[in-house]
Amino acid sequence: MLMAEGRRRVQIEGISPEIDGGKFPVKRTTGEWLRVEVDMFCDGHDEISGVILYRKEDSTAWLEAPLFYLVNDRWYGNFTVTEMGRYVYTITAWVDHFLTWRKAMGKKIQAGQDVSVDLLIGAQLLEQASQRATGNDQSQLLIGAKTLRSIQKEDPYNIEQKVFSEHIAGLMNKYPDRNFATTYEKELPIVVDREKARFSAWYEMFPRSCGEPEKHGTFKDAIARLSYIAELGFDVLYLPPIHPIGYQFRKGKNNSTTAEETDVGVPWGIGSADGGHKAIHPDLGTMADFQEFVKKAAEYNIEIALDLAYQCSPDHPYVKEHPQWFKARPDGTIQYAENPPKKYQDIYPIDFETEDWENLWQELKSVVDFWIEQGVKIFRVDNPHTKSFYFWEWMIDEVKKKHPDVLFLAEAFTRPKMMYRLAKIGFSQSYTYFTWRNAKWELTQYFTELTTSPAYDIFRPNVWPNTPDILHEYLQHGGIPAFVIRYVLAATLAANYGIYGPAFEVCENRPLKPGSEEYLDSEKYQIRNWDLNSPYSIKNIIARVNGIRRTHSALQTNQNLKFHQINNEQIICYTKQTEDLKDIILVVVNLDPFNTQSGWIYLPLQTFGIDGSQAYQLHDLLNDEHYTWWGEYNYLELNPYHKPAHIFSIRK
Amino acid sequence: MLMAEGRRRVQIEGISPEIDGGKFPVKRTTGEWLRVEVDMFCDGHDEISGVILYRKEDSTAWLEAPLFYLVNDRWYGNFTVTEMGRYVYTITAWVDHFLTWRKAMGKKIQAGQDVSVDLLIGAQLLEQASQRATGNDQSQLLIGAKTLRSIQKEDPYNIEQKVFSEHIAGLMNKYPDRNFATTYEKELPIVVDREKARFSAWYEMFPRSCGEPEKHGTFKDAIARLSYIAELGFDVLYLPPIHPIGYQFRKGKNNSTTAEETDVGVPWGIGSADGGHKAIHPDLGTMADFQEFVKKAAEYNIEIALDLAYQCSPDHPYVKEHPQWFKARPDGTIQYAENPPKKYQDIYPIDFETEDWENLWQELKSVVDFWIEQGVKIFRVDNPHTKSFYFWEWMIDEVKKKHPDVLFLAEAFTRPKMMYRLAKIGFSQSYTYFTWRNAKWELTQYFTELTTSPAYDIFRPNVWPNTPDILHEYLQHGGIPAFVIRYVLAATLAANYGIYGPAFEVCENRPLKPGSEEYLDSEKYQIRNWDLNSPYSIKNIIARVNGIRRTHSALQTNQNLKFHQINNEQIICYTKQTEDLKDIILVVVNLDPFNTQSGWIYLPLQTFGIDGSQAYQLHDLLNDEHYTWWGEYNYLELNPYHKPAHIFSIRK
Repeated sequence: MLMAEGRRRVQIEGISPEIDGGKFPVKRTTGEWLRVEVDMFCDGHDEISGVILYRKEDSTAWLEAPLFYLVNDRWYGNFTVTEMGRYVYTITAWVDHFLTWRKAMGKKIQAGQDVSVDLLIGAQLLEQASQRATGNDQSQLLIGAKTLRSIQKEDPYNIEQKVFSEHIAGLMNKYPDRNFATTYEKELPIVVDREKARFSAWYEMFPRSCGEPEKHGTFKDAIARLSYIAELGFDVLYLPPIHPIGYQFRKGKNNSTTAEETDVGVPWGIGSADGGHKAIHPDLGTMADFQEFVKKAAEYNIEIALDLAYQCSPDHPYVKEHPQWFKARPDGTIQYAENPPKKYQDIYPIDFETEDWENLWQELKSVVDFWIEQGVKIFRVDNPHTKSFYFWEWMIDEVKKKHPDVLFLAEAFTRPKMMYRLAKIGFSQSYTYFTWRNAKWELTQYFTELTTSPAYDIFRPNVWPNTPDILHEYLQHGGIPAFVIRYVLAATLAANYGIYGPAFEVCENRPLKPGSEEYLDSEKYQIRNWDLNSPYSIKNIIARVNGIRRTHSALQTNQNLKFHQINNEQIICYTKQTEDLKDIILVVVNLDPFNTQSGWIYLPLQTFGIDGSQAYQLHDLLNDEHYTWWGEYNYLELNPYHKPAHIFSIRK
Repeated sequence: MLMAEGRRRVQIEGISPEIDGGKFPVKRTTGEWLRVEVDMFCDGHDEISGVILYRKEDSTAWLEAPLFYLVNDRWYGNFTVTEMGRYVYTITAWVDHFLTWRKAMGKKIQAGQDVSVDLLIGAQLLEQASQRATGNDQSQLLIGAKTLRSIQKEDPYNIEQKVFSEHIAGLMNKYPDRNFATTYEKELPIVVDREKARFSAWYEMFPRSCGEPEKHGTFKDAIARLSYIAELGFDVLYLPPIHPIGYQFRKGKNNSTTAEETDVGVPWGIGSADGGHKAIHPDLGTMADFQEFVKKAAEYNIEIALDLAYQCSPDHPYVKEHPQWFKARPDGTIQYAENPPKKYQDIYPIDFETEDWENLWQELKSVVDFWIEQGVKIFRVDNPHTKSFYFWEWMIDEVKKKHPDVLFLAEAFTRPKMMYRLAKIGFSQSYTYFTWRNAKWELTQYFTELTTSPAYDIFRPNVWPNTPDILHEYLQHGGIPAFVIRYVLAATLAANYGIYGPAFEVCENRPLKPGSEEYLDSEKYQIRNWDLNSPYSIKNIIARVNGIRRTHSALQTNQNLKFHQINNEQIICYTKQTEDLKDIILVVVNLDPFNTQSGWIYLPLQTFGIDGSQAYQLHDLLNDEHYTWWGEYNYLELNPYHKPAHIFSIRK
């Protein structure tokens, strides 16, 4: 075994982050920094030094970031990633004989010991370093060595001045002897996405509901809707599948198993004689219409996200062309989706255990490639946890090699370890349990988990107060305040969030039946015509909050979330702040949609750089009101009908 | 990337134990079991099955242990290692189509659905399994398939009987379809030592103090001492270095820097004209005497452990023969040991950064090989943390490849991460902070850490109430009760422990000076003649406790340690029990050596399999007294002078 270089002495372990032993990458976006911590030590009492090494994966040149001592043999350092794509990082560290010598000299001089030989040792160290230096640095080191050699029995003050020259120490730090450095045995990966992976506001909309009443909307209608969405302040517009919809076993309104002639079907029942995953539903328009829609959206700074739902209606062309991609039953029929005893006969799941899996994988990937060519760079992936994890890992990696700006949002509402695994294997953003986390303790616990390592390093939450599948009972019963409360929470707890509109902003709250989370007259099964100017619409609040998010960078990341104490279980209170403390946002939300709640909030002012003995200003950006607070404890009161939340900007 | 086998579907992660990503082995002893936990899941709703695969590293045949579902996608299993040497283990898991089918059938039958096609699917699964089976199993599976095929519209009860045959389920479990199994990508190592690595009682003794008063003792004298040590019940006798001692800068009595002509020197100042690490101090005898001593000890079931102190006196032959192994100073002298401003001019540390490191490593290893040839299988390594970690890793591994029964005890009292790292790189046992952990909360916290994963998997504590370097103030001031208390704690908290005797058992408590942990008239610098029959000797208690340890296997491991509540901070209370609950030991110790302490102890009787409504018997093995307790709360009182501790055997 390791007869490699026996003179290495530093031990390196306990690197964080290191996802599953370095198997999976850490996630960051361009401009974000990564804090690395590591345990390092060497035998004996010598001093050590070390740096983080990092580089773009396709570059051979390492960059370096210094490591600083923390506590208990733990060190830390930071570096910033600037380009999209894959980076790697590792640690290298060495015994620092100069630092060791310098420290020992201090003790020896203080003890009044004869240091004449030690001065010569120091001079040797400087001379050796000079051989690694060039130009002026080299001369300076040689002069330093000469100085040490020339010191005879002087008084301690003079010796100390010469021995402890900060200038020389700086040069010695610049030219360390790394001959016997230990480099950690793994290069740990990072995937760097564009900023939108970290900060985005999504709006989900059925384009077929954008037309005239009772008429099937088109991309042309959807173009007309863009200005409205832009006014609300969203920057990602996500469409349920836009492909032809199957006819066999088509579902009717409100999930009826018998469809009327006029029923439009479920967009997720993909595929008919008109085509499959690379085709557009004829009633929506043509490919050219779609391209025009994408282009117009871009003019509003809105990106289009498509739904990637790898499943087929019985009428999908794949069923005839590639029957081997589906599971055959002994009676010759194809296995439809089921979750016994429930049957979904309108859906054929793809059989990832097919012998023809290599062609299947290539075809599925070609769907993504196809839409990338049409200008789509964001995919919301339907139920990825019901398809092969190995497929996703391969496909996402292949796509991102060519298109590092492509993003995938995992729509998986499943068990926690599966959620995190999907993130680890490559999904850029992930749906969360937010929709079902309504109490203060739940929100605090869950968002603390999501915004700290290791979750922060792999999993980017995209939180939704509603989806076409989920109308939570909190929204069903809480009236307009419930919508505002859940909206403010989503938009300020997480840098990525979304709503399913217009159902959300017009406060649609009628469930299919009591106890159900399904919408009544759900758009999944029928066209809906929404009154965008409904008196119940909270669009103005949405527009305002999206504006606040855009102008306050504190709200554009999750790493900075801190919850604070308030003596009322119905009020939640948290801050987000930039590193430089120039932008500090304090959010206070009354979680009770029915009653006024009040309490004394405690703020650790020191962590905001605020002098507790001075007054400080709060500007409520949501309600455009100004407050002056003083000290760490302050009282507040929130009436859900008039003011369910504050979004304060704290000014010193 | 992984276009390997795209039909695999199970994801495997979060294996525990997995030391530093599998870089270092888990430690076990022959006959011990290893519990493995792992997160496993697959896409969708299918059922999965998996097993632990394990084997001796030099065998190609995997053994298997079943995995059982725990909670939250976590599974667990156990297996026992039986032979010394290196093992590896990993996990393999697969989608279990039979279990999936069986579960779905239950739901479908309950819902009264038509299952005629499902019965055919089941028959196919049985037929496929029959191809993997042979003999009777094969026929049984074919018969089972036939039965399923023959079921027509029967009444549900009959169907259920046939579908859910436990016999068939057992056969299907025996012949699973593992074609698309996922096997975890790493094989994780285990080092299996002999039992003594886990369970041992050490006695440290200076053989030169075994002779007539004021005379230098010999191995012959040490042979005469063996019966005494055997009576006390120790099974490892550890000797400080037995090599020739240097003369230059030799230390005198009580660490005086000027030695008298008659001063015998420090055994750790190794090497003189008489030889180095492979020689025996002439005053102790000859190599033949040593071999005789080792042989005689074995007759008492006592193994000899030698001290491995890789450092040299200025008179060591290495200094002349291999000056390149030491650091030269610019004035031509050799660098002595120092911890500025302290100087240790009697010791030359070895320079592990020498260019000649490969020869150095081989020579150092040859020292171990040499003593192995003389019959020594246990080495107590002096200050391993001041020598190259890479050297230890290489050396221990090389030695154990040939001699898996050799054990190394790390005498490192240093920072926690370095202590654990030494264990990870190969040390079989380790000194601990026990000596400085005297309060109940300290002992509880520290031993909980040491006896649970991950520490348990890598670090085998060997706890010492005293050493020649450490006479803790608790022993200095607490009188005989302090010695008994610390002794009982050491011998029952840890399966491996040791004392430095006879200083310990005769309750030597005089420090060099107030505030010092050094012994007055320390044997490190002079010969001591101990009165083994001192009226203060606690040898009878020691003999009794060692006897209890030998007959109660609950005390022979650390994995089973549990602390219990008692409403007195001066009384500590813990149990150790065997897996089968046949041996339950309850230890209660009064930590106050001055005052009687009492309290109500709480025992979770259920975990011992004791019916709380019945009386149960306690036999105090230490004091040979019998008690009857009833219920979970019981009162006790401990007078430190008469009875500072109980070691109860609980009998149901």
